[in-house]
Amino acid sequence: MPSGVISSVSRLSIPSSAKSWIEVSPESHFPIQNLPVGVAAIDFEDDSSEIFNCMPIGDFVVNIDMLSQEGLIPEFDGFPLAPWSVFGGQESLREVRRAVFALLEESNSKLRDHAGLREATIHSRANIVPLMPMKVSAFVDFYSGINHASNVGRMFRPDQPPLLPNYRHLPVGYNGRASSVVPSEHDVTRPRGQFKVGDDLLFGPTRELDFELEVGFFVANDSEMGEPISIDEIEDYMLGMVLVNDWSARDVQRWEYQPLGPFLAKSFATSISPWIVSFDALEPFRIAGPGQEPPVLPHLQSSVKGHYDIQLEVGIQTAKMTRPQTICRSNTKHLYWSFIQQLAHQSSNGTPLEIGDLYATGTISGETEDSFGSLLELTWRGQNPLTMGETGETRTFLEDGDTLIMTGWGQAEGYRIGFGEVRTTVEPAPRQ
Amino acid sequence: MPSGVISSVSRLSIPSSAKSWIEVSPESHFPIQNLPVGVAAIDFEDDSSEIFNCMPIGDFVVNIDMLSQEGLIPEFDGFPLAPWSVFGGQESLREVRRAVFALLEESNSKLRDHAGLREATIHSRANIVPLMPMKVSAFVDFYSGINHASNVGRMFRPDQPPLLPNYRHLPVGYNGRASSVVPSEHDVTRPRGQFKVGDDLLFGPTRELDFELEVGFFVANDSEMGEPISIDEIEDYMLGMVLVNDWSARDVQRWEYQPLGPFLAKSFATSISPWIVSFDALEPFRIAGPGQEPPVLPHLQSSVKGHYDIQLEVGIQTAKMTRPQTICRSNTKHLYWSFIQQLAHQSSNGTPLEIGDLYATGTISGETEDSFGSLLELTWRGQNPLTMGETGETRTFLEDGDTLIMTGWGQAEGYRIGFGEVRTTVEPAPRQ
Repeated sequence: MPSGVISSVSRLSIPSSAKSWIEVSPESHFPIQNLPVGVAAIDFEDDSSEIFNCMPIGDFVVNIDMLSQEGLIPEFDGFPLAPWSVFGGQESLREVRRAVFALLEESNSKLRDHAGLREATIHSRANIVPLMPMKVSAFVDFYSGINHASNVGRMFRPDQPPLLPNYRHLPVGYNGRASSVVPSEHDVTRPRGQFKVGDDLLFGPTRELDFELEVGFFVANDSEMGEPISIDEIEDYMLGMVLVNDWSARDVQRWEYQPLGPFLAKSFATSISPWIVSFDALEPFRIAGPGQEPPVLPHLQSSVKGHYDIQLEVGIQTAKMTRPQTICRSNTKHLYWSFIQQLAHQSSNGTPLEIGDLYATGTISGETEDSFGSLLELTWRGQNPLTMGETGETRTFLEDGDTLIMTGWGQAEGYRIGFGEVRTTVEPAPRQ
Repeated sequence: MPSGVISSVSRLSIPSSAKSWIEVSPESHFPIQNLPVGVAAIDFEDDSSEIFNCMPIGDFVVNIDMLSQEGLIPEFDGFPLAPWSVFGGQESLREVRRAVFALLEESNSKLRDHAGLREATIHSRANIVPLMPMKVSAFVDFYSGINHASNVGRMFRPDQPPLLPNYRHLPVGYNGRASSVVPSEHDVTRPRGQFKVGDDLLFGPTRELDFELEVGFFVANDSEMGEPISIDEIEDYMLGMVLVNDWSARDVQRWEYQPLGPFLAKSFATSISPWIVSFDALEPFRIAGPGQEPPVLPHLQSSVKGHYDIQLEVGIQTAKMTRPQTICRSNTKHLYWSFIQQLAHQSSNGTPLEIGDLYATGTISGETEDSFGSLLELTWRGQNPLTMGETGETRTFLEDGDTLIMTGWGQAEGYRIGFGEVRTTVEPAPRQ
């Protein structure tokens, strides 16, 4: 095994009975069992500001750089972490989570009973701004949501089988743009692009701005070029998950995508939730996937449960609304291909994996109309606009000033392991 | 204009009459007028080794880190450069080239007459190994070679017009894989992949390993997300050019590419020439492009000559051959879309450009059969194998042990501005 890679056998499992001395409500996404990692900025009253690595718990975040500096958790490989820095792989994240868990556990008085240290290391989540949890080295987007792929097939190729012949044999995917992956609370500017209206070819602000409900995972370790990682070892390269909104300009996409796939229709922005939720914390939600028929080739066969039962929701809040309206409820269990299969596929041709690679699933639609993961599907190409109950406004695609909110969590007995939100407001296109 | 961006008006032009005190033959790719930049490794006799930034001239390279340390050229922004570091934009490269030009110019005795300094700063090119000239932040590949696009259309859609409706309206392109871009002299491992043979679906070493003759350019400056750069300003974001071999597994590509474009068929490797040739040095070879009919939309219209007259050649040398055989002669003038148009298109939707982005053209085929830029076209899908004159071997696609060599240069009166080579040997697929 390459150095730095450890077997997933030594996974960190925080007991479901564990409690923190920080109060956490049962609906919180961030109980002591979660302890995901991210980077945040904070402005202090004296006008100074700071960027730091942190872990959310309940309504707070814990500054783990400061914990390390104060000697409350050990200095780990690569610690104290520079902002945007990279964890030294899965085991490094595991060690930090283990140490922070011990410190926040209800019986541990070291930080609990030390007001000065608490003030220096714990901030209200309401006071921080989430940044990118890692520098994204590559962004790849799959097409593993079989209901979404089928819906798109039905819309655009109505006289053919909804799925193309390769769909059940390999996880179809494509390379996206890494430089435009942004965290929650980063506004997105409506892109301009080329599209057709009737016979006219126009360049201007997209008229069909859409979201795509996805999840994704970050890669923990580098691999060597020309040396594929087998599906049995690939899990050791996976760090943790985030929610992903793969913004799409449908009119631009229709015109540009033949023959080489989506390009400018998606490269302008991708939004993610700011906390990397470790696969260790998601262990209670592992499930077997759907049966795969026909059977896949051996290099994509895995003996472990590779799917997850994670509930997903999407809400819209227009500028006139006072609260969001839920427009979609879905679940990661609707994925045909598992994360393990996706990454084994990527590595099978010897592509070097890099720390910071982000692999997203593609749109995750359920089977019913209220579980579709994009406006394209929810409104069936704009034929059935959504109505906002509070204001009576209708939406086929997103308008300037609309805020799109995604959230997701695994529900355990008495607690949730959640992702927080991806919350993004649409800004008008540049005038130039 | 963003800070660090300077107008292309102040371009560095080295007179065609200039000569260096280092002897340079008229066929050399690296006269004093070129001075491209790259990174190289050298092993010394005492078993020590070094990695350094350098500029080739004639049969030598000049260690520019050492020139800076010795005070022979000024310390520039970001100097001395760390290996793999990033030049501080176009103007930083210009200043280095200006200073190195002055030092190597035949009348300058400072280095010429100082044997100790010469030995410390100048190495034979035969003794160094070229590395990547920049860390590639994003790799984008266009489809701007109109003869290639037409050939592919004729092969795969024989009963339709060879070009798709969008081809003459926007530079079709897709995102490639940045982590597998490697320099010349880096062997490439034959990838394994999924492909069909008749009705059978197989996973194994590709049987249709191909090259693609391309050029590409590196980006010099970052731009802000959501703030498109207009085509009139985009040239200030372009640093310099390299040759690009976009390796392709045709059998994998055929099976995987619908509906989201090429993925594993190309992500395993892309090879580039190791010296970034500045656009300043390529100025003498600028030409008007082909007329564009129908006229393109205003955001893609440029008033400057955006094309280049650069000769390109491809050779193959099998393991049995003692010298390469030229199999293709082409020219960058066969591109339909200019670099300026490509980058303006990429930026038009607000995608943030990053220092180190590499934009390649797509395969550059000429009009005649001996000018096609891929084996797919040269053998017309394998129907007309190539014969190696020296050994009588035939090739439809590349075999293990074959070496593929690309080269290219602009021919001026009495000197050439060249790119050197992209030389790559095909290694067998991993056995696992």
